[in-house]
Amino acid sequence: MNKLIEREKITSKKEKPDPSSLGFGKYFTDYMFVMDYEEEKGWHHPRLTPYAPIMLDPSSSVFHYGQAVFEGLKAYRTEDGRVLLFRPEQNIKRLNRSCQRMSMPPLDEELVLEALTQLVELEKEWVPREKGTSLYIRPFVIATEPSLGVKASKNYTFMIVLSPVGSYYGDQLQPINIYVEDEFVRAVNGGVGNAKTSGNYAASLQAQQKANELGYDQVLWLDAIEKKYAEEVGSMNIFFVINGEVVTPALSGSILSGITRASAIELIRSWGIPVREERISIDDIYAASARGELTEVFGTGTAAVVTPVGELNIHGRTVIVNDREIGEISKKLYQTITDIQLGKVKDPFRWTVEV
Amino acid sequence: MNKLIEREKITSKKEKPDPSSLGFGKYFTDYMFVMDYEEEKGWHHPRLTPYAPIMLDPSSSVFHYGQAVFEGLKAYRTEDGRVLLFRPEQNIKRLNRSCQRMSMPPLDEELVLEALTQLVELEKEWVPREKGTSLYIRPFVIATEPSLGVKASKNYTFMIVLSPVGSYYGDQLQPINIYVEDEFVRAVNGGVGNAKTSGNYAASLQAQQKANELGYDQVLWLDAIEKKYAEEVGSMNIFFVINGEVVTPALSGSILSGITRASAIELIRSWGIPVREERISIDDIYAASARGELTEVFGTGTAAVVTPVGELNIHGRTVIVNDREIGEISKKLYQTITDIQLGKVKDPFRWTVEV
Ligand SMILES: Cc1ncc(COP(=O)(O)O)c(C=O)c1O
Ligand SMILES: Cc1ncc(COP(=O)(O)O)c(C=O)c1O
Repeated sequence: MNKLIEREKITSKKEKPDPSSLGFGKYFTDYMFVMDYEEEKGWHHPRLTPYAPIMLDPSSSVFHYGQAVFEGLKAYRTEDGRVLLFRPEQNIKRLNRSCQRMSMPPLDEELVLEALTQLVELEKEWVPREKGTSLYIRPFVIATEPSLGVKASKNYTFMIVLSPVGSYYGDQLQPINIYVEDEFVRAVNGGVGNAKTSGNYAASLQAQQKANELGYDQVLWLDAIEKKYAEEVGSMNIFFVINGEVVTPALSGSILSGITRASAIELIRSWGIPVREERISIDDIYAASARGELTEVFGTGTAAVVTPVGELNIHGRTVIVNDREIGEISKKLYQTITDIQLGKVKDPFRWTVEV
Repeated sequence: MNKLIEREKITSKKEKPDPSSLGFGKYFTDYMFVMDYEEEKGWHHPRLTPYAPIMLDPSSSVFHYGQAVFEGLKAYRTEDGRVLLFRPEQNIKRLNRSCQRMSMPPLDEELVLEALTQLVELEKEWVPREKGTSLYIRPFVIATEPSLGVKASKNYTFMIVLSPVGSYYGDQLQPINIYVEDEFVRAVNGGVGNAKTSGNYAASLQAQQKANELGYDQVLWLDAIEKKYAEEVGSMNIFFVINGEVVTPALSGSILSGITRASAIELIRSWGIPVREERISIDDIYAASARGELTEVFGTGTAAVVTPVGELNIHGRTVIVNDREIGEISKKLYQTITDIQLGKVKDPFRWTVEV
C-alpha cells in the first residue's frame, strides 16, 4: 500500500504557531493528502503534497450545487510522546455514508486510513503537547466538474488537511448556555441531516448568530416537523440525565450519528447506568427540570469532547441545570474519554490506533 | 460607475462552440466578472477579467460549510440583433435575499446590474442566434475564509460567468414525465428552501437519480411535514390547470420564489384567467385528474422557460395529463414569454432591459 501513495517534498517548513494561540482550524501543517476522481478512471493519483491553494474552474459544481462532504477527527499526543487516533475507521465509514447520500463516489476505506495515517506520521511534530490541544484531521471531498447542469458531478477531489487546535469552546469543561431554537430548523427526515455535508452547516449559521446575539453559546435544534423533539447541537449530540438515567435523541435520520455519541453510550452503559435512545420532547425536559429531576445535560463531539450545559432557554423560559456546575456523569465521561484518547488508561474497547 | 470596474484584456479569444452542441452550462465565454469581500474593506475591486481557474485555500469555508448562493438568468438575441435581459433586477434582489438567509454580506444591487450589463456587453458576440438558445448568466457568491471554525466566513468572492446554452430539456415544449417524490424531501419551513443556495441542489440529487432510474425526467417535491402538498420541481415552479382555473403552490417559505413563476402569474391574470396561489395537496390533483378536470400541468423556470408535464407518478399511480399533449395555456404562456424575451412583441410590463 505504502508505495501507492506518491510523495512530493516540501522545500521549507512553516513555523509552528504558539500553542496558546491555536484556536480552531486557523493553522495548517506543511503537507496535505490529495486524490482525484474521474468517471472513467475512478479514484486515482493518491499523493502527499505541500499544503497549498488549489485551482478550480469557476463553474466547478461544488461552488454551485454544493456536493461536498467532510469528516473531523483528532490525533492526540500521549504523555510518552506517542500519537493516537480515536476510532478513525468510524469516521471513514461515515464519510462513505455521507458520499452515498450526496450521490458521490465511495472511497476505498483502507486507502483512506492508510493516507490519513501516513499524513499524520509525516506531520507528527505538528501534534501539540499542551493540555486540551490536538491535531485536528479534516478529510473532505468536493465536486469539481466544470459544468452548470444540476446533476451529480463526474469529477471529485478528496483531500485531507491537518490543523493543530486548542479546545473548541475555549476553556475546557466550562458549562455552556444553549438556546432551544424554535423558529429555524436544521434538517428534516428525508433530507440530508444525517450526512456530514456542507449545506447543513451553512443552513445553521443564521440561528447560531441569533443565539449568540441573545447571549447563548450554541443552538439546540428541534425536529422540523413538530418543533418539539430535541435533535442535536451545532456540532455535538446532546444527552440528558433524568432521574439517574441517561437519555439521548435516537438516530432519527435527521441528526448526525456522532462517534463521540456512540462511544459515550457504550462507556456509560459499561458503568451500569442505563442509556435510552429515543424521541425526547423539549417540554418533557422542561417538566423534568421543574420536578428537579433533570440533573445533567451535556453535549458530545470530536471538537467539543464532552461539554456540560449550564443553562437552556426553552421557549423563552430559562432552565438552570445542576446550578451551572459540572455533573458527575459529564465529568467522569470527559475524564474517561480524554484518558483513553491520550493513552493514560487502558483502552478496553480498542478505540485508539497508534500512528 | 463605468470607471469603477477595472478591465483586464484577454490575449486570445476562444473559438465559439457549434450552436447545435451547446447543451447547458458546458462552455464559458472569454471574460468573467469578479469582486472580493473582506470584513474590513467590504466589497471591493470589481473587475472584468479573463475567464480562468481561481485559487482557493483548501480550508476555504465554501468547501466545508457550504456558504454559497447563486442566480441564473439569460441574455436573449432578438431577430434584429439586439441583446435583451429579462427582469435582471429581480434576480439581483433574490441574490441578496439568499445572501441574507445564508449570513452572507449583501451586494450593491446597482453595481451588480452594472457589472452584469458590462460583462454581457463585452461578450455580446457570444449571445447565440439559433432558436431556443441564449446566453446563460450565472452570478454567484462563495465563502473563502481559510478557517475550519463553523461560523459565517469573513471573506467572500462574487463572480459572474457566462455560458451560451441550448434548451435545458433538449427539444423544446416536449411534455416531460414527473415523479412525485414521497420519500426524500428537498426543504422544510424554517430551513433554507427559499434561498438559492448550493446545498439545496446537492440535497436533491439522490431523488433526481431515483426518478431517472424509474424513467422520469424530474422530481416533484412534496412538503417535508405532511408529504402531501406540492412544492416545486428540480429547477422549476409548478402550475396546475383545474376546471379552467390555474393554481400554483403558494410561497410557503420552503420553495424558491421563481421569477418566471411571478411573470407567468401576472401574464395569465392579464388574460382574465384566475390564478390561485395556495397549498395544493397531491391527492386533490389525483382526484381532479380522475374527474377529468386536470387539463394542464406545467413548470416554469429560467432554464426551462415553460415546460408542459405529460405524466405524473403519484404514489405509484400514473396520471396522464391532456393525453400528453401541450395544453392551451402552456402553449400561449410559452409563446408570450419567449416573444417578450426575444423582443418580438411589445413588452407591456417593461420586463426586458436592452444591453
Ligand atoms: C452536526 C453535528 N452533530 C454532531 C457531531 C458530533 O459527531 P462526532 O462525535 O463524530 O464528532 C458533529 C461533528 O463533529 C456535527 O457536526
Ligand atoms: C429550485 C428552483 N425552483 C424554481 C426555479 C425557477 O426560478 P426562476 O423562474 O427564477 O428561474 C429555480 C431556478 O431556476 C430553481 O432552482
